[in-house]
Amino acid sequence: MRKLKMTLAYDGIDFAGFQRQPRQRTVQGTLEKTIQRITGEEVQIIGAGRTDAGVHAAGQVIHFTTQNPMPRDRWQRALNLSLPRDLLIRGVEEVPLSFHARHDACWRSYRYTVDTRPLPDVFTRRFRTHLSCKLDVPGMREAAKYLEGTHDFTSFSATRATVENRIRTLYRVDVQGDEETVVFNLIGNGFLYNMVRIIVGTLVEVGRGQRSAAEMMTILSAGDRNQAGKTFPPEGLCMMGVGYTPWEG
Amino acid sequence: MRKLKMTLAYDGIDFAGFQRQPRQRTVQGTLEKTIQRITGEEVQIIGAGRTDAGVHAAGQVIHFTTQNPMPRDRWQRALNLSLPRDLLIRGVEEVPLSFHARHDACWRSYRYTVDTRPLPDVFTRRFRTHLSCKLDVPGMREAAKYLEGTHDFTSFSATRATVENRIRTLYRVDVQGDEETVVFNLIGNGFLYNMVRIIVGTLVEVGRGQRSAAEMMTILSAGDRNQAGKTFPPEGLCMMGVGYTPWEG
Repeated sequence: MRKLKMTLAYDGIDFAGFQRQPRQRTVQGTLEKTIQRITGEEVQIIGAGRTDAGVHAAGQVIHFTTQNPMPRDRWQRALNLSLPRDLLIRGVEEVPLSFHARHDACWRSYRYTVDTRPLPDVFTRRFRTHLSCKLDVPGMREAAKYLEGTHDFTSFSATRATVENRIRTLYRVDVQGDEETVVFNLIGNGFLYNMVRIIVGTLVEVGRGQRSAAEMMTILSAGDRNQAGKTFPPEGLCMMGVGYTPWEG
Repeated sequence: MRKLKMTLAYDGIDFAGFQRQPRQRTVQGTLEKTIQRITGEEVQIIGAGRTDAGVHAAGQVIHFTTQNPMPRDRWQRALNLSLPRDLLIRGVEEVPLSFHARHDACWRSYRYTVDTRPLPDVFTRRFRTHLSCKLDVPGMREAAKYLEGTHDFTSFSATRATVENRIRTLYRVDVQGDEETVVFNLIGNGFLYNMVRIIVGTLVEVGRGQRSAAEMMTILSAGDRNQAGKTFPPEGLCMMGVGYTPWEG
């Protein structure tokens, strides 16, 4: 018995999210089926985070246990030859049997990209949300600072989220803009359901001058989803990476 | 009666090429149907070049005549609201009734992008051809120089091409490489069927050391498709632009 840790990249558009669901094309389901086809073994994949339908990953991390003795580079080659082109194994590591992709993760990093050009771009549209208006980047950056630190993020979580403890720590919420895009980078110890997409939706309201930066405090302390902005669409969101040692900035 | 010239961008993957075909999703068919839905008018679109299935465009040019008096910016807005997301109108101009998108074109510009990283990239795979090997860029650049100028390009044209005059002028065949990609930029007064994809397939054989640069002369003068390299796949190819004034370098 051994445990493998793999880093995945995927174009989320044609997946009904990470988590396996009956009769749906999912990342977990596709990977489990492909592993079974190659090795004959039925494995259960655990991911560091469950990305939603349409959300991408450049560095999702998963683990599973296997009896198969194949060396790790052969695992990677065999899987990449068999997987569809929108799902790629970027790396394979052998890890102790105690390793857990979700429980052991110290931080996760997400990026949200908004295309601010007057016209959308047919070549990048799958990975950016188009919003043809100028956004006040310094204003959004100021607002983002209020979110850094340890808070109850109930206001920034989908109401249907069932988790009880909604306290999370955001190590960094960073906003960068150029002529074409505004990019939001978020790093935190964990994220609630839809949290990044609601944070971006709220920051964009600041960027459009519809809210002040300081309102972020009021929203946070309200503990009420209705106080925050709308949930931004999935295509702009990408899970960038997962860290297994404490965040050091 | 007026004539409109439009510049289009499209992601070619889900189109069966530019040219209208029964029961196929094509660029021409999609645009004609959308115009009819908006204006009630049946128009016939003429494109500067007929891109193949899977080939992209950043600057395809088309024209059509219409009775509709809508101002050009309203044409653009109305079309972009109704067109699918993989087809975009980048610009609209009113042109003299004598204008012809294909006959009046003085030059066309194409780009072919090869991803040379060890692993393909799920985010750029739609617009690059993956080939995980190092290519000799200076060698390909030297070979490319033999193609510049006026030649009979029969050897670099699909055998099923029916056009009789296969003499074309290439103003520039340019090869650039970085850590991730090799990019081929071609500008010419016209291109035969599959010409760019066969040229790239042949240059890549030079880049892999399978042919010498000087062999390009032999291939050109043979006038035989079998002498050239294989036709490279469509996804790496993009029609970049069309010029209506003489090429000036």
